[in-house]
Amino acid sequence: MPRDTKISKVGSNVTLINVMKIAGLNTLGISLARIDYAPLGENPPHTHPRATEILTVLEGTLYVGFVTSNPENKLFSKELRKGDVFVFPQGLIHFQFNPNPYKPAVAIAALSSQNPGAITIANAVFGSKPMISDDVLAKAFQVEKKTVDWLQAQFWADNH
Amino acid sequence: MPRDTKISKVGSNVTLINVMKIAGLNTLGISLARIDYAPLGENPPHTHPRATEILTVLEGTLYVGFVTSNPENKLFSKELRKGDVFVFPQGLIHFQFNPNPYKPAVAIAALSSQNPGAITIANAVFGSKPMISDDVLAKAFQVEKKTVDWLQAQFWADNH
Amino acid sequence: MPRDTKISKVGSNVTLINVMKIAGLNTLGISLARIDYAPLGENPPHTHPRATEILTVLEGTLYVGFVTSNPENKLFSKELRKGDVFVFPQGLIHFQFNPNPYKPAVAIAALSSQNPGAITIANAVFGSKPMISDDVLAKAFQVEKKTVDWLQAQFWADNH
Amino acid sequence: MPRDTKISKVGSNVTLINVMKIAGLNTLGISLARIDYAPLGENPPHTHPRATEILTVLEGTLYVGFVTSNPENKLFSKELRKGDVFVFPQGLIHFQFNPNPYKPAVAIAALSSQNPGAITIANAVFGSKPMISDDVLAKAFQVEKKTVDWLQAQFWADNH
Amino acid sequence: MPRDTKISKVGSNVTLINVMKIAGLNTLGISLARIDYAPLGENPPHTHPRATEILTVLEGTLYVGFVTSNPENKLFSKELRKGDVFVFPQGLIHFQFNPNPYKPAVAIAALSSQNPGAITIANAVFGSKPMISDDVLAKAFQVEKKTVDWLQAQFWADNH
Amino acid sequence: MPRDTKISKVGSNVTLINVMKIAGLNTLGISLARIDYAPLGENPPHTHPRATEILTVLEGTLYVGFVTSNPENKLFSKELRKGDVFVFPQGLIHFQFNPNPYKPAVAIAALSSQNPGAITIANAVFGSKPMISDDVLAKAFQVEKKTVDWLQAQFWADNH
Repeated sequence: MPRDTKISKVGSNVTLINVMKIAGLNTLGISLARIDYAPLGENPPHTHPRATEILTVLEGTLYVGFVTSNPENKLFSKELRKGDVFVFPQGLIHFQFNPNPYKPAVAIAALSSQNPGAITIANAVFGSKPMISDDVLAKAFQVEKKTVDWLQAQFWADNH
Repeated sequence: MPRDTKISKVGSNVTLINVMKIAGLNTLGISLARIDYAPLGENPPHTHPRATEILTVLEGTLYVGFVTSNPENKLFSKELRKGDVFVFPQGLIHFQFNPNPYKPAVAIAALSSQNPGAITIANAVFGSKPMISDDVLAKAFQVEKKTVDWLQAQFWADNH
Repeated sequence: MPRDTKISKVGSNVTLINVMKIAGLNTLGISLARIDYAPLGENPPHTHPRATEILTVLEGTLYVGFVTSNPENKLFSKELRKGDVFVFPQGLIHFQFNPNPYKPAVAIAALSSQNPGAITIANAVFGSKPMISDDVLAKAFQVEKKTVDWLQAQFWADNH
Repeated sequence: MPRDTKISKVGSNVTLINVMKIAGLNTLGISLARIDYAPLGENPPHTHPRATEILTVLEGTLYVGFVTSNPENKLFSKELRKGDVFVFPQGLIHFQFNPNPYKPAVAIAALSSQNPGAITIANAVFGSKPMISDDVLAKAFQVEKKTVDWLQAQFWADNH
Repeated sequence: MPRDTKISKVGSNVTLINVMKIAGLNTLGISLARIDYAPLGENPPHTHPRATEILTVLEGTLYVGFVTSNPENKLFSKELRKGDVFVFPQGLIHFQFNPNPYKPAVAIAALSSQNPGAITIANAVFGSKPMISDDVLAKAFQVEKKTVDWLQAQFWADNH
Repeated sequence: MPRDTKISKVGSNVTLINVMKIAGLNTLGISLARIDYAPLGENPPHTHPRATEILTVLEGTLYVGFVTSNPENKLFSKELRKGDVFVFPQGLIHFQFNPNPYKPAVAIAALSSQNPGAITIANAVFGSKPMISDDVLAKAFQVEKKTVDWLQAQFWADNH
């Protein structure tokens, strides 16, 4: 059964899957999630600080990618179809995007930790509580401070 | 001896320190760096996918911080002086900024891995090679595609 | 595209999936396999000494299970359909069986090691080279030595 | 003092040894067991999912072995005497058998985990609760279903 | 602010630094200490059974060193000044000594474990409770038993 | 067959045991040693920086012990006979002594690392190459510098 993807601005819905609760098996070191994507919906750029992720597409098409670390910042991306599998290495920034304007998509994500963590880049940088000094962000993104202030107002409202 | 901090737009210079090269000790699992900050210079928001970092201030003043993962996105920040120590947990986005407009600052960073990796957020998101589709980034940062294109042009030129 | 499942007596075909070969990413610590099941085909009882397995069903129906260790020897089993996910903990004996006499099935297995190893129980016990003494196996399985000898002849021929 | 080896059908008795209970030392990551073997007794084929085992013979003679994983299924076996040491790698199927029809044997097993787990193959495959479907086992061991049913009845009674 | 270094016979004072107490961050795997050295004071030969140590000098001069394991027993030593960094590998015997007879010194030690442990060699060997048999120590240090007894009396009084 | 224990001043002989050399099994993470003790011989106080040790006595009697870390420095010791087992935790100082003036003793040591390392305390402290400054050792052991110099001359000659 498809999940509601309209509740988020970016058009995706991440549902944690219950690994069987069995006495003595509470240390398997993995987590699982089902991700539903609206047409043109996305799981925006994010990282998992403590896990590598394996994504299997169940329905639809997904444009996915990750970027390697400094100094290369190389993008590895691919269009995946049903049954395709992709790996996002631990800690690297990655995303999934449903390029089809008419059909939804569904994927299963397996993560190599019981406590993988997730950092959505835009939310962490512009929507933290309290906010990061706009001096820091203006210089880092090489934009004016008023642009930073506008982005912070927007993401802070979304997050909190 | 101070290092040149003018070579980077953000006003900082990261120098890797040579851990003693001793036969049989090549598996210590750490790396070290000296960081020089120009007045108002910064080490912009970045993550280390495979290491926790311990920062010790040797000279000057630093405003430092890191943001926790979803859903809290809580900022922990502090102004550090000479002799102060701060910890940045593995994989979390963090930064250091020298708030003094006249004096430089110096710090030592110890990382809990021989191969910690470093991802500068702005470079990875906007300066990857090839570029991430501007459809993906416009929706993620909730800005117009032409803003994304402008940022990509700027960071791509810096990176490559 | 479906793989040939007639080459094995038990009616299944395990194909290793190529994790992307990227410089510097050769230490992700996972492996992936696609498994095709003929109608009534099975992946017979086996263990992975160095990995937990996550199975996602892409097509068809699978009756799957694993048995816990001494002294409980409890069987956890379930009938899975397309999109269902199941976890087999490291080192435990497990199996998958396609109960449908007309339709094939397909699954993706993700393993938490680059070198998980696989031990098919019947092959290791009765088909090892050289053979385990039939004194040992007759007492262990509480059958006569001639039964052990017959099984060894059969599996040894299959394996070698 | 020798332990009673008549209580088990296979003629062996595994006694866990108490690692000293000392405040602050409860994380040594090992376990120890003393194993007594009756004349012609055995510790039947089993695996430890989370530990490598080191066996030291204290008294008597033992024929021991383990089988490597697919596709080789190679048996490494040896006859050990007092003072001899043997290693069983993590997760591999292994056994010990006392070939002497008149004299008992004694060994010390050290395992590289506080919670190694133990899976006796015959018990797990034929004596699980509930039982594994006989369709699955008949095909896996290439025997008739009535043979599987007879083995299951026997091991289920022993286990439960 | 300098700490009191007169409370110990060897002229040093080790103060544990509080890593920030943050919900969810209690598993960083590190510890930190500030060490104050009186003029001619020292942190005597010791080991950390579960951690590598990174030392950064904040004030003054330190003669530091560690000794490799058998059979080389090679001493690696260096005179460090303000801003210098040195690494002591896990489990090896090491020390720091302030060679200046007039000025104190200060250093920050970062250890790669939350529970590194510390064993001061002289205290453990001669000051244990109860004492190690003087037969054992006389032979090990190739001195007479009365010399061992005298050292034990002295260190036992210091420790207890 | 007993090994020669007269070649060392302390009356013991440590022989590494060859773990079976099998293709693909070279990562078991253990090492084994046989130790022969002359009457009144000893394995003097030492540590293994990277392994916990399990000792099994094969012949004779051994007085064994280890000392916990600061601040307790508590000695755990025991007299062991044939078949007894003892555990020395990673990195702690420990020893074995044969208290019988007429009979030798033999033990098997299993270590939880392929590269455990061994540091004989007296050799590392007084016999390093080059020598540790006698200022450092005189203050640490609270003896006069000439006593340190005498010990250094003795152990340096033994080691090199």
